[in-house]
Amino acid sequence: MQTIYLDDVLARLRASLEQDDFAGAAAIIEELRPVDQADLFTELDEEDQVSLFSQLNPASSADLLEELEDEEAAELMAALPAAAAARIVAEMEPDEAVDMFGEMEPHQVQAVLSQLADPDEIRPLLLHPEDSAGGLMTVWILALRRRMTVAHALDAIREWQPEDKEIIQYLFVVDKEGKLCGVVSLFKLITSAPQQLVMDVMNPEVISVSVGTDQEECARIMSRYDLLTLPVVDEQGMLLGAITIDDVIDVLEEEATEDIQRFGGASPLDHSYLNTGVAEIARKRIGWLLMLFLTGTLTGTVMRLFEDELMAVVTLSIFIPLLIGTGGNAGSQTTSTIIRALAVGDLEWQDALKAFWHELRTGLILGAGMATVAYLRAVTWGTGVPVALTVALAIMAIVVWANSLGALLPLAAAKLRIDPTVVSGPAMSTLVDATGLFIYFTIARWILGL
Amino acid sequence: MQTIYLDDVLARLRASLEQDDFAGAAAIIEELRPVDQADLFTELDEEDQVSLFSQLNPASSADLLEELEDEEAAELMAALPAAAAARIVAEMEPDEAVDMFGEMEPHQVQAVLSQLADPDEIRPLLLHPEDSAGGLMTVWILALRRRMTVAHALDAIREWQPEDKEIIQYLFVVDKEGKLCGVVSLFKLITSAPQQLVMDVMNPEVISVSVGTDQEECARIMSRYDLLTLPVVDEQGMLLGAITIDDVIDVLEEEATEDIQRFGGASPLDHSYLNTGVAEIARKRIGWLLMLFLTGTLTGTVMRLFEDELMAVVTLSIFIPLLIGTGGNAGSQTTSTIIRALAVGDLEWQDALKAFWHELRTGLILGAGMATVAYLRAVTWGTGVPVALTVALAIMAIVVWANSLGALLPLAAAKLRIDPTVVSGPAMSTLVDATGLFIYFTIARWILGL
Repeated sequence: MQTIYLDDVLARLRASLEQDDFAGAAAIIEELRPVDQADLFTELDEEDQVSLFSQLNPASSADLLEELEDEEAAELMAALPAAAAARIVAEMEPDEAVDMFGEMEPHQVQAVLSQLADPDEIRPLLLHPEDSAGGLMTVWILALRRRMTVAHALDAIREWQPEDKEIIQYLFVVDKEGKLCGVVSLFKLITSAPQQLVMDVMNPEVISVSVGTDQEECARIMSRYDLLTLPVVDEQGMLLGAITIDDVIDVLEEEATEDIQRFGGASPLDHSYLNTGVAEIARKRIGWLLMLFLTGTLTGTVMRLFEDELMAVVTLSIFIPLLIGTGGNAGSQTTSTIIRALAVGDLEWQDALKAFWHELRTGLILGAGMATVAYLRAVTWGTGVPVALTVALAIMAIVVWANSLGALLPLAAAKLRIDPTVVSGPAMSTLVDATGLFIYFTIARWILGL
Repeated sequence: MQTIYLDDVLARLRASLEQDDFAGAAAIIEELRPVDQADLFTELDEEDQVSLFSQLNPASSADLLEELEDEEAAELMAALPAAAAARIVAEMEPDEAVDMFGEMEPHQVQAVLSQLADPDEIRPLLLHPEDSAGGLMTVWILALRRRMTVAHALDAIREWQPEDKEIIQYLFVVDKEGKLCGVVSLFKLITSAPQQLVMDVMNPEVISVSVGTDQEECARIMSRYDLLTLPVVDEQGMLLGAITIDDVIDVLEEEATEDIQRFGGASPLDHSYLNTGVAEIARKRIGWLLMLFLTGTLTGTVMRLFEDELMAVVTLSIFIPLLIGTGGNAGSQTTSTIIRALAVGDLEWQDALKAFWHELRTGLILGAGMATVAYLRAVTWGTGVPVALTVALAIMAIVVWANSLGALLPLAAAKLRIDPTVVSGPAMSTLVDATGLFIYFTIARWILGL
């Protein structure tokens, strides 16, 4: 329904643009919510984008830029004179503006900053890495003093007229030196007696993060304690800004995207899929593909080691893809579960033994099941009982081995402070390929008496 | 730091329990934030849990139950008399209570409901599926009337004393019949003139969902439009309740977990990893493992089809695991990227051609790179030029094929309204195994003139 509605607006927008009615097109865009504006905007070709963008008022332009990808936003800004760009930046949330600056040329950023009326809103944010609390926070906050009365606090809030309304639900309280000492909700303020002091109605048990905290850690804290805003402090405990829940949802989504891409065996993309060039995508994948290939050559080594057995019983080779495929699948099932349990905090590396025991038993059940099926399949294919038995025993051993490896490797990575997603599905398959072959041929040698 | 602090509290808690000082233990627990309470609580053995739980006051018990897994919460409740259980349920958020009821025996639920002072808070929620807007919403909301003055609205809010403070940031406005017609923030109310009417300060453009909307759709809407609360209406547009952002973060995390587990080739677990029994984990995995095994037997069929070639040139078999492994890896890289792009809305099935073209070119680049490496590796292994050439050409073709398949299959699934994660990494590997072998032997037959 949403999409149909937007498709309709897009048709009207295109009609206006065809008649070079850019003011009309701007009016159509400005009626929409910012995220919908951005969706339609990216459907237009570049020329129309630039013409249309110059027709929007600074506040609408700012809303739109905040919703576009940083790279696209930077391109639009680069086409504007510095003074016009500065008028738009002044309306943007400082943290979003800084993210966009990250994609612009340094001399462009300097030009825009030099035109800003209040560059100190943004300049401090440029010092923090984009993926830290400092890079994520907004500095548009109103700090209350401990010894203010509730009535004064409400007056201050009424006068403040914040540009971002999200941040107002909880207000942070600082002492004389600017150190964070409490939090109070707007609701609490309006339900308290006007002459009470803020320090008597605030909650002094406020959770905060220091400015260098990794953004994923910030997201985990806010999600764990159901916080709408998270104050950011420096080493002395001075209040610097606050992170809002909408930014954190984006972080959580971004981290899940990176995890899934890594788990698929590729380095995560920096931008959305269709906005990433083919060369860049290939660059993100070739490293892993090569490393897995080189590890995969171990399979050749194992096969040459057992070349005599292969020559003697060519039937053995027919089951190779099936056996190592099943091992890779079992390993991939295990490692995906373990990696996610680590990511959401259900598991820590201290639980390694528990997880290993869990997977060992799961592997035994699955292995027994698969062995039965494999035996029956081999026999119905007309394979003799000795080879069928070899295949069944090998699949059992390989599944147990794959499950154990799939549990232990990500936990070992976590212990070594390596991202556990390096133990991706493809990495598991590749490891199980070579070791699985070794297991298979060893069992064959033993049962077939080769 | 967090963990160290909690470890310390756990030690104190255990000391109290050893001396059978349950009141002291309860006091230690009640000092903590609910989520930390739940973390420590699950570390205790069952007997201590029951003894300790009976010492907590109803409000603390309710907080704790809300943070525990539904299954654990249900077990604790089952040990209590219905009257005591009802006192706790009355303090719980209705949507959380209903989730817990889902894990209790029907006669236990009836017994608790019959003891509740206000069962109508909960009863309507029991009608909605757990994963719909109706199952996710809270009914603890305060609806304002359009023709109220701002002063009256603020009085109503002050009198209301909501049990859940999160919901108060935005207030929904209904008309005479109870139909949703606007939204207004608490901030807007306190900054408006007291004698103004609510309808003149509210925003009439309120986004809402109907009660049957899937929870993932609700989460996408709130994340897309940066909403803190999302009102839920029935078919007539009557306001029924609202979904809060904290519940939505849990939904997003849960969906990402399910996607990663499915992408690893297993059905998602219903509970956290260590709380899921081995038999249950095996049950969630065996179906896929078997299906992939049966699909994998196609590799045997292909190999038997080319048995003469295999007998003639045994060296060919040495490269089999390496070739199909690389194909599976390339396919897994592609499909993970495409699946995630679909999940976050960067791609739709309408973009199938674009994605295919993207991956075809990426596949050509990666395939050319891998072919060069494979050729060199084969030659340094002492393989003759014809077989080395066969391997190089085959790896090129297989990578291009795997990339194309990895792009098109999830998009086709999306078009058919099947969850694209069914095209998991293991599924890709298995499909590429059989087809990759066919490509390899066909090229071998052609180059080696077999």
